[in-house]
Amino acid sequence: MASKGIEKQRRKAAIKRAKAVVKQVKQARAAASEQLQDALSSPVLWSEDPRSLLRVDENFSLADFDRSATPGWEAGKSAGKDYTKERGKHMADLQERLYAQGKEGARDSLLVIVQGLDTAGKGGVSRHVMSMVDPQGIHLKAFKAPTEAERREHFLDRVRRELPSPGIIGVFDRSQYEDLLVPTAEAKTGRPDEQGQSWAVSEDVLNSRYHDIYEMERAAVEGGMRVLKFCLMVSYAEQGKRLMERLERSDKHWKFSPHDLDVRDDWDAYQAAYEEVLRRTSTEIAPWYVIPADRKWYLRLAITEIITRTLEDINPVWPEADFDVEANKARLALTMTDEAINAHR
Amino acid sequence: MASKGIEKQRRKAAIKRAKAVVKQVKQARAAASEQLQDALSSPVLWSEDPRSLLRVDENFSLADFDRSATPGWEAGKSAGKDYTKERGKHMADLQERLYAQGKEGARDSLLVIVQGLDTAGKGGVSRHVMSMVDPQGIHLKAFKAPTEAERREHFLDRVRRELPSPGIIGVFDRSQYEDLLVPTAEAKTGRPDEQGQSWAVSEDVLNSRYHDIYEMERAAVEGGMRVLKFCLMVSYAEQGKRLMERLERSDKHWKFSPHDLDVRDDWDAYQAAYEEVLRRTSTEIAPWYVIPADRKWYLRLAITEIITRTLEDINPVWPEADFDVEANKARLALTMTDEAINAHR
Repeated sequence: MASKGIEKQRRKAAIKRAKAVVKQVKQARAAASEQLQDALSSPVLWSEDPRSLLRVDENFSLADFDRSATPGWEAGKSAGKDYTKERGKHMADLQERLYAQGKEGARDSLLVIVQGLDTAGKGGVSRHVMSMVDPQGIHLKAFKAPTEAERREHFLDRVRRELPSPGIIGVFDRSQYEDLLVPTAEAKTGRPDEQGQSWAVSEDVLNSRYHDIYEMERAAVEGGMRVLKFCLMVSYAEQGKRLMERLERSDKHWKFSPHDLDVRDDWDAYQAAYEEVLRRTSTEIAPWYVIPADRKWYLRLAITEIITRTLEDINPVWPEADFDVEANKARLALTMTDEAINAHR
Repeated sequence: MASKGIEKQRRKAAIKRAKAVVKQVKQARAAASEQLQDALSSPVLWSEDPRSLLRVDENFSLADFDRSATPGWEAGKSAGKDYTKERGKHMADLQERLYAQGKEGARDSLLVIVQGLDTAGKGGVSRHVMSMVDPQGIHLKAFKAPTEAERREHFLDRVRRELPSPGIIGVFDRSQYEDLLVPTAEAKTGRPDEQGQSWAVSEDVLNSRYHDIYEMERAAVEGGMRVLKFCLMVSYAEQGKRLMERLERSDKHWKFSPHDLDVRDDWDAYQAAYEEVLRRTSTEIAPWYVIPADRKWYLRLAITEIITRTLEDINPVWPEADFDVEANKARLALTMTDEAINAHR
C-alpha cells in the first residue's frame, strides 16, 4: 500500500516535470519555427535547378564526377537538412493531391528508381526521403536477384507488376537496370553474383534489353507516369569507411557480406558499367540524375528537391466534389442537433 | 549581366540569413532535447500498461466506453505528442532489429490490424505512427470491398497473401474483420454497401468465418507472428464534426461520399456489430484493443506504446556475424591505403 502511494507520487512528479520541459521546448520551437520556415521557404537557396546540374547527358563522365560535392547548394549541412524537412512538407502536400486526383480518374503517377553500389545510401532514400509523405500513397519495391520463377519469365515481367498505379509514387530500390549493369560488369570481371549465379548474356540479348526497357518506359510515360532515375555515386574512399563501420559495429554486421569486398575489388568494372548504362539510358522521357553520395544530407536534399519540383510540374489538383455539397451539409447538420447527439451518447 | 549579379547577391544574402536562423534553431533544439528525452524517457508516465486498460474482454461494452478519454495518460496533449515521438525512435530501433534478425532466419513478425468507422483515424495510424519506422520493414495493405475475382475465392485468400513475412510489420487498414462486421451490421439495417453490393450471409456461413479467422490467427501465431488488433472508436458527435470538415474544405471533398451519411444513419447497428464481433474475437493469442479516438494524439500515443511494448516482448536481437569479422577487416584495410584510394580517385 505504502509503496503504491510512493509510486503514484513519483509518477505525479514525473508528469509535472515532463509537462514543464515540454512547454519550454514548445515555446522555443514556436519562436524559431516561423523564422526558419521563412528563411528556408525560397528555392532561391539553390544556385540552379538541381535537375540541370545533375542530369546525365551523352558526354557524362564518371571520372570527372566529384562524389563529395554539393552541386547547386552552398548553404551547408545544417541549413540543407532543415530545408529538406521544409520541402518535405510541400512534397507531402503535393503527393496527397496526386493521390486524391488519382482516386478521381487522373492518370498521373511517379516512378522513382534508385540505383547505386553498396553503402551508397539507397535505403536512406526510402527511410529519410519517402518517409516524409503518406505511406498510403507510396509503393515501395526492393528488387533482389531474380528467383527461380522470375528467371523463367521475361525480365521485365516482375518490374511491370510493380509499376505505380495512377496517384501513386512507386519507389524501386534497384530495378530493371540491374539486368543491364550486372551483365555489363560481369563481362569485364567474369565474376558471378553472391549466389554463384552468372548474369552473362550475349551482346544481342543485352541490346534487346536496352530496347525493351526503353519501350516499357515510353509506354509508361505515355500512360501518364513520370520516371525519375537516381544513381547514387559514392567514392571509393567513402565506401571503404562505410564498409569498415559495418564491420566495426556489431549492430551493423547483418548488413555486411564478404561478397561486398569482391564487388569492391571490381570497382573499376562497375564504374565503367555504370557510365555506359547511364549514358545509353538517360533519355528525354526518363532521365538519369547522378547524385554525389558521400554526403548523405546532400543526397537526400537533392532527391527531395527533384521529386518536389517534378510534382510541382505535374501540378496535381484537388478533385471537384461529384456530389451536392450543400445538400450533404444540410443532411449532416440534422444529425448534429443536441437531441441527435444525446440519442447516440 | 547586371540582373544576374543582383540575383547572385540576393541568393548570398538568403543563404547567410538561412544559416544564421538554422544555427539558432539548432542551439535551441539541442539545449531542450536532452532535457526532453530525459523527461519523457520513462514509461512511468503511464499510470498503467495501456494493454491492460484497453484490452477487450468478454464483458466489454461499447455503451460505457468514453471515446474522448485518455486511459492511463494524465500528462496531457503536448507531452503526449512529444512522448510519442521519443517512443517512436525506440520503436524504430526495435523494428530494425526485428528486420535484421528476420533476414538471418528468426521467425518473428508482427501484424497490426486497424479497424474503425469512417473518420476514426485509421489512415493516421499509417501516416503518423508507422511512418516513424523504416518503410522497408513495413508491409502496408488497405483492404477495400473485394473485387469480382476476390469474391470467387475463399474470403481469407486475399488476406493470407498479405500476411507479413518474418522480420516484417504488416499493417492492415481494414481486414478480414470486415467480413464479420459488415454482414452483422447489414443483418440489422438491410442496407447494401456503397457499390450496391449485399454482404449478407447465413448464420452458418458467418459462424464458419469466425472459425476460419480464428484458425488463421492461431496458425500465424504458432508460426511466430504477434497479432495486435486495434479498433478506433470515435463518438457520434466527433464523427459529425469530422464529416462536416470534409464537406466544408474543398481539399477534403475527395475523402467524402454521400454513402458516409447512410452509414452514419446506421450508427446503432454498427456499434452493436462492433461490440459483438470484438467480444467474440478478442482472444488470448490475438487480443483486440479498443482505442478512444476522439483525441487523435491519444490514439497515436496509445498505439505507438502498445506496438513498442509488444516489440520489447519479442526482444529481437542483432544477428551474429556469419563471417570472420577480423579477416574481413584486414582484407578491407588493404583497400584503404593511400595508394589504393589514389588509384580509384
